[in-house]
Amino acid sequence: MLLAPHLRERSMQFLTAPLSWLCTVLLLPIPATQSPPSLAAQVPERGKLEVLAKEALENPRAYAMLAELCAVAPKRLSGSKGAAAAVQWGQKTMLSLGLENVRLEPCMVPHWERGTLESLVLVSASGAAPERLSVCSLGGSPPTPADGIEAEIVMVKSFEELEGLGERARGKAVFFNRPMDPVRPSLFQAYGGAVDQRSRGSAAAAKAGALCAIVRSMTLALDDHPHTGAMRYEKDACVPTVAISTLGAERLATLLSRGETPRVKLDLDCRWYEDAPSFNVVGEILGHEKPEEIVLVGGHLDAWDLSVGAHDDGAGCVQALEVMRLIKTLGWKPRRTLRVILWMNEENGLRGATGYRDTHREKIDRHVFALESDRGGFAPRGFESNSTGADLARLAAIGEQLRPYGIQYVSHSTGVGADVGPLHELGVPCAGFIPESARYFDVHHSALDTLESVHPRELQLGALCMAYLCFSVAEFAEPLGRVTPAPATQH
Amino acid sequence: MLLAPHLRERSMQFLTAPLSWLCTVLLLPIPATQSPPSLAAQVPERGKLEVLAKEALENPRAYAMLAELCAVAPKRLSGSKGAAAAVQWGQKTMLSLGLENVRLEPCMVPHWERGTLESLVLVSASGAAPERLSVCSLGGSPPTPADGIEAEIVMVKSFEELEGLGERARGKAVFFNRPMDPVRPSLFQAYGGAVDQRSRGSAAAAKAGALCAIVRSMTLALDDHPHTGAMRYEKDACVPTVAISTLGAERLATLLSRGETPRVKLDLDCRWYEDAPSFNVVGEILGHEKPEEIVLVGGHLDAWDLSVGAHDDGAGCVQALEVMRLIKTLGWKPRRTLRVILWMNEENGLRGATGYRDTHREKIDRHVFALESDRGGFAPRGFESNSTGADLARLAAIGEQLRPYGIQYVSHSTGVGADVGPLHELGVPCAGFIPESARYFDVHHSALDTLESVHPRELQLGALCMAYLCFSVAEFAEPLGRVTPAPATQH
Repeated sequence: MLLAPHLRERSMQFLTAPLSWLCTVLLLPIPATQSPPSLAAQVPERGKLEVLAKEALENPRAYAMLAELCAVAPKRLSGSKGAAAAVQWGQKTMLSLGLENVRLEPCMVPHWERGTLESLVLVSASGAAPERLSVCSLGGSPPTPADGIEAEIVMVKSFEELEGLGERARGKAVFFNRPMDPVRPSLFQAYGGAVDQRSRGSAAAAKAGALCAIVRSMTLALDDHPHTGAMRYEKDACVPTVAISTLGAERLATLLSRGETPRVKLDLDCRWYEDAPSFNVVGEILGHEKPEEIVLVGGHLDAWDLSVGAHDDGAGCVQALEVMRLIKTLGWKPRRTLRVILWMNEENGLRGATGYRDTHREKIDRHVFALESDRGGFAPRGFESNSTGADLARLAAIGEQLRPYGIQYVSHSTGVGADVGPLHELGVPCAGFIPESARYFDVHHSALDTLESVHPRELQLGALCMAYLCFSVAEFAEPLGRVTPAPATQH
Repeated sequence: MLLAPHLRERSMQFLTAPLSWLCTVLLLPIPATQSPPSLAAQVPERGKLEVLAKEALENPRAYAMLAELCAVAPKRLSGSKGAAAAVQWGQKTMLSLGLENVRLEPCMVPHWERGTLESLVLVSASGAAPERLSVCSLGGSPPTPADGIEAEIVMVKSFEELEGLGERARGKAVFFNRPMDPVRPSLFQAYGGAVDQRSRGSAAAAKAGALCAIVRSMTLALDDHPHTGAMRYEKDACVPTVAISTLGAERLATLLSRGETPRVKLDLDCRWYEDAPSFNVVGEILGHEKPEEIVLVGGHLDAWDLSVGAHDDGAGCVQALEVMRLIKTLGWKPRRTLRVILWMNEENGLRGATGYRDTHREKIDRHVFALESDRGGFAPRGFESNSTGADLARLAAIGEQLRPYGIQYVSHSTGVGADVGPLHELGVPCAGFIPESARYFDVHHSALDTLESVHPRELQLGALCMAYLCFSVAEFAEPLGRVTPAPATQH
């Protein structure tokens, strides 16, 4: 909504005074030449946030939408029936919200299925009873031969250690057992420091001549739930690979520490299928002044198949939908078009995101902002943005207003999210919503990512913060500047 | 630990540069005359926090202590056997941590017990089957007569509304049904805006001539768990009073909205006993330079009797103990004495806190700081302090260092916590640890305040932040100034 002249002036007074600390509060390197008036149009007039918060917190809808998604499409890995059901749900939900230009944008997606057999059993030469450990196939793993694989365990904590084993890894089951580092303040960082074992372990084990690989689950929780996730698959260059629960990993490590030489029997019947047709789901609230300019907000609709994918990324999907519902319900008309997108195939291919980029390549410069929520539905902490300088300061000024709702920083990052990554490659200003991380990896990619693990208010606070950010950016008098394109990555 | 001269200089360089934003980041009105050198001694030398964080996050002990407390003394309302067991546990734990001057400081506490009968049944004149609703006695409620109370429900949302009823409240069951306001960003505020119904509802109902009172539970969660809590009890000036679950409250409200006139039968056998002897539990790490000066840290050991009191306030107790363990384990010798206190009777009398004040009144000026944790064991958000100006800035500078662990602000408040309140009345600088609030009132004072509702890492991050704050304050070259005494409150 345009600022009425009298409001605009008041708004400027409000904003210019605290400008110096608006910038510094959020630890931003704002150039001294930043002139106060340029921030005048950076936030909607005062009172707008209060109205939005009242609707968001009195009549929250994100959790109810999430419950519906989890019930309608609990298992929605790309190519599955669940994914198809989720697409239908997304379209129907957007129509029910009264969005415009609701459509399915096609993309072809990889199709891998877990099958029905995933078993890892400790076998003993000494006649002790076989002992089954909790594992799940990593997404993309090839199956074992029909009669399984039997091999002795060899444990490593790094690829260097594996290489150092040389021929001693040949014919073995390589057990990657480097835990996430609990000393890292953010568990997203801790995850980033350990997940190479999951993504590259299979190929590294294959290269070393091993028969299979076992990867410690990416969580600090000590329990018996294995956590799946994508591994890089190349035909004939990977071995059958599973994630093992952290308790299972501790069990193996204990046996090895006692000098035993545990052997395991692994049976997996997961497999790859032909690529399958699927869709991103898209809807809009048209801008009243610059309808051709797009503020994009989204989460990814696909999810791992061990759970209903409530946090990852049902939460992001319903938060993006709730952004639209809130603005629609309030009857707000943004200056630019708000577009919601439910991406397909973030988990194992990113074909929805790359497909969107390719489909819209000629109009990519009309994308003035893209916000992603894909770190769980926990209490808000901040936003990451690929913008810098004065543009980052403009976002930070919005973040500052959201401080009572939990937003404590807006920081720069060159990697704000997987699904907006392809847009970042083309210079689109992108941002990621960052919630509290302590509980996320307890449930991430496991059977524990249930509806019950999401807290309705935490989820809704995130949606509220996202809605205010998106609406504010859609209202900017001058759009954010293009960003330095990220290097193209392999998808 | 004293700063070595070369470190002191480096530390000053580090601190003086960002001084302006250290102050503003945390929204503090720092006087322009604040001179940078005065902040030199405000934080331990660089690297200290990293060492503390490594021990805290690699070898966390807070959750294990909490599990033990919940197992040993699950129900520990003042005067109960559970409270006595908790005192013994606290003393034993402090001794096992190698603390000095471990002792029990006696206080007399109120003794109220829930009994075994608490029943609220909807009775129907029309012959419909009786319907039992989930209620629990409020702490301090008198019992009903042996044959119970039967009365018609009259619903109000405020004391003004009750007064307006005049004689129409006489002989009735007054149902206080004003929910917590979900629009308040912090649920601590929302709680503060509704809890008068619980604390004063019974007396107000008695004054209006009602027979009993029913108070909607203090939570936004819609479920069937009633939440207890203290009510102000005066003999012959209160009526039997229960909290009703939010679903039960909705049930009553629905009946009333249909024009029905629901009647209830209430039976309670809770009762008051003579005051009982109990204790605060205290232990120390003696200061090496100013052992007579005290930095106090604590939580309260008593808890409501519907659960194990994991968040309220087992969490605060074990965080305070973990502060001591961390510093002891690292072999750090603070300049001043660190004293841990597990307060008794926060929930229904505050006798531990007022007793401590009275016992130590002559040495109260030697208390240079008192930190309380009593808002649950969730992820850290900030600290509140009763200091102002430059002293608040010194605390904020420490808080700024804790930003990676979740501390986002250090703000001024004149009411930082119940147990430090009596010290505040005597001018002691006090602070409260503030965690994320979204989930707290789901469990607060109900059967849901279980060990499982506490997240080990969130709990430990709080202990880490508290430990760094306490150690830093114990190291100050100049202690914090005395604060304006809070007005004495009735305890």
